[in-house]
Amino acid sequence: MSSIKNKRILDVLNGVPVDKTPVWIMRQAGRYLPEYKATRAQAGSFLDLCQSPELASEVTIQPIKRFDLDAAIIFSDILTIPDAMGLELKFEDNRGPYFDNPIDDIDDIKSLSDKNTDSKLEYVAEAIIHTKEKLNNEIPLIGFSGSPWTLSTYMVEGSATKEFRKIRSIVFKEPEMLDLLTQKLVKSITEYLIMQAKAGADILMIFDSWGGLLNTQNYVNFSLNPMKEIISNLRKNSITRNIPIVLFTKGGGSWLNQIAESGCNAIGLDWTTDISMARNTVGDNIALQGNLDPCALHGTEESIKDAASKIIDGYGFGHRHIFNLGHGIDQYVDPENLGILIDHVKEYSKKYHQN
Amino acid sequence: MSSIKNKRILDVLNGVPVDKTPVWIMRQAGRYLPEYKATRAQAGSFLDLCQSPELASEVTIQPIKRFDLDAAIIFSDILTIPDAMGLELKFEDNRGPYFDNPIDDIDDIKSLSDKNTDSKLEYVAEAIIHTKEKLNNEIPLIGFSGSPWTLSTYMVEGSATKEFRKIRSIVFKEPEMLDLLTQKLVKSITEYLIMQAKAGADILMIFDSWGGLLNTQNYVNFSLNPMKEIISNLRKNSITRNIPIVLFTKGGGSWLNQIAESGCNAIGLDWTTDISMARNTVGDNIALQGNLDPCALHGTEESIKDAASKIIDGYGFGHRHIFNLGHGIDQYVDPENLGILIDHVKEYSKKYHQN
Repeated sequence: MSSIKNKRILDVLNGVPVDKTPVWIMRQAGRYLPEYKATRAQAGSFLDLCQSPELASEVTIQPIKRFDLDAAIIFSDILTIPDAMGLELKFEDNRGPYFDNPIDDIDDIKSLSDKNTDSKLEYVAEAIIHTKEKLNNEIPLIGFSGSPWTLSTYMVEGSATKEFRKIRSIVFKEPEMLDLLTQKLVKSITEYLIMQAKAGADILMIFDSWGGLLNTQNYVNFSLNPMKEIISNLRKNSITRNIPIVLFTKGGGSWLNQIAESGCNAIGLDWTTDISMARNTVGDNIALQGNLDPCALHGTEESIKDAASKIIDGYGFGHRHIFNLGHGIDQYVDPENLGILIDHVKEYSKKYHQN
Repeated sequence: MSSIKNKRILDVLNGVPVDKTPVWIMRQAGRYLPEYKATRAQAGSFLDLCQSPELASEVTIQPIKRFDLDAAIIFSDILTIPDAMGLELKFEDNRGPYFDNPIDDIDDIKSLSDKNTDSKLEYVAEAIIHTKEKLNNEIPLIGFSGSPWTLSTYMVEGSATKEFRKIRSIVFKEPEMLDLLTQKLVKSITEYLIMQAKAGADILMIFDSWGGLLNTQNYVNFSLNPMKEIISNLRKNSITRNIPIVLFTKGGGSWLNQIAESGCNAIGLDWTTDISMARNTVGDNIALQGNLDPCALHGTEESIKDAASKIIDGYGFGHRHIFNLGHGIDQYVDPENLGILIDHVKEYSKKYHQN
């Protein structure tokens, strides 16, 4: 890890001062880039692209070639785990990912495999190995997984539904069933993240896209505690003992104190949370990542810079902020606007890192 | 107002001690009730039902006949205002409300009428008059409107879209355009709420369903400040000067302090906010309304009671809590389960209201 040339993000995660605020962008390898679309067309389906280590590594580094980014994130999807556990993942353009046979009862959960999930996901490890070669130690590579709750949500609902009423009702009606699914996912996600670190991932991130659907008690029970268990498992393993971990709960702004106690090194913030309030809440023993509204990228050059400055000003002096969006970049963003944002963050943030 | 027999909710709103926690349910007149479906079928379309004062008042009191509720809320829709301003509101079953010609530019906004919106919405005033007769001063009647931001959202998007990218981008790219729309809405909503109070509404509620899409600064600029302006307008009018006002921002859990300073008498909480945290944040000079996860109603008798008890315990001793769901009741709830909930709230909360 020490051989990486641009260590800004690792430094922020480890509490070491940096010269400017580092930046990466959620979903930075994606459809807003014409070169991504070209490779995607070459690969066939979205899943074909995920499962082709060479092409996945190619799209992973595409944004790095274009922009002054401080990290790459391996191109993959959070639903590869349910797929490896036996639910057949499908993608259709203009629909998003889905499962034809979502989980309905405890027998469906019992029939899921949680043994050696990692061996069925070796294509991700291979993509990481290819990417690390291409990155040539210039910047760190982020590996990731969905959270147990977020994966449960998709596995029960079948896709991202409007109200998520099926899983939200199970929380109250059949919590034991959900516990069983959660435990299988904790095991599989742990194995999967260790595999990614072994293959070369320098940072691990857990995406809890749907934690914000829950009330506080259920968030703690069904989302935060299982993530804590994963972090604790990773800390017991020699490969992942010291790896920095970022935890992102969309809609988790009310639970920052609890998240800060999870053992993670950084909290990802969505755009609805005020970053200065977040810093006041959790202090400087933990890093914060975020949190520009992705729609700000549809603004003018001036409004983009202004919105980014407000976040940097909101964080203020200090070295524990990784700039990012508050959610993934969307396909309609003009790549030029992203370049404006990234360059501005680098330039504008310098004043907060002097002395 | 003083002639109303069951004044529990009015007392909570005015800071007067009560014998038990009062309760009403968002969307309590709705599709989960077979008698609602029958009246709806009789009326024709959803909009026909809203626009028929006699039938609208009938569905308003249906849940009152079934359950031990402490308030009625006039049956209507938040999108009646944009309809009255010139956007033609349409409903289709299984789609939800929409506008065929949503707002695209400033000319679309200029062509909207904000003069005498109330005169085009007299059917709501008539429905209130009919309902007040039927209620016979047993319990208070709540009138309501959508917030300016929430109405803008629908008017620009055309319907409840997945990401609301069009309006969220306008916030950054064309804030002046949004300001113009907001000002027209503030005027129309003010008139509309005064009309409802004049017709007999005892309490007014503003539903800000989509405030949670915004970052803090934009929430304050485009959602909270316009709501404050409406409240300030209402306080200047002799009819509404002393009427209790409830303000509900879905996803507004991080902004409770700011909302508490809006001049409202109560804050509606969605289910993701912890009610004891909320009370600690805003204190006892303001009432709190909420906040059971509507999906809890799909649980067992025991789990429903347990979930409700946790909220009542979370609020604790005190007289400034109105029990409600954290969002509207859904069409799949068994009405029997709602009865279990309401009776339990009444019984269980007594211990927090002694002496």
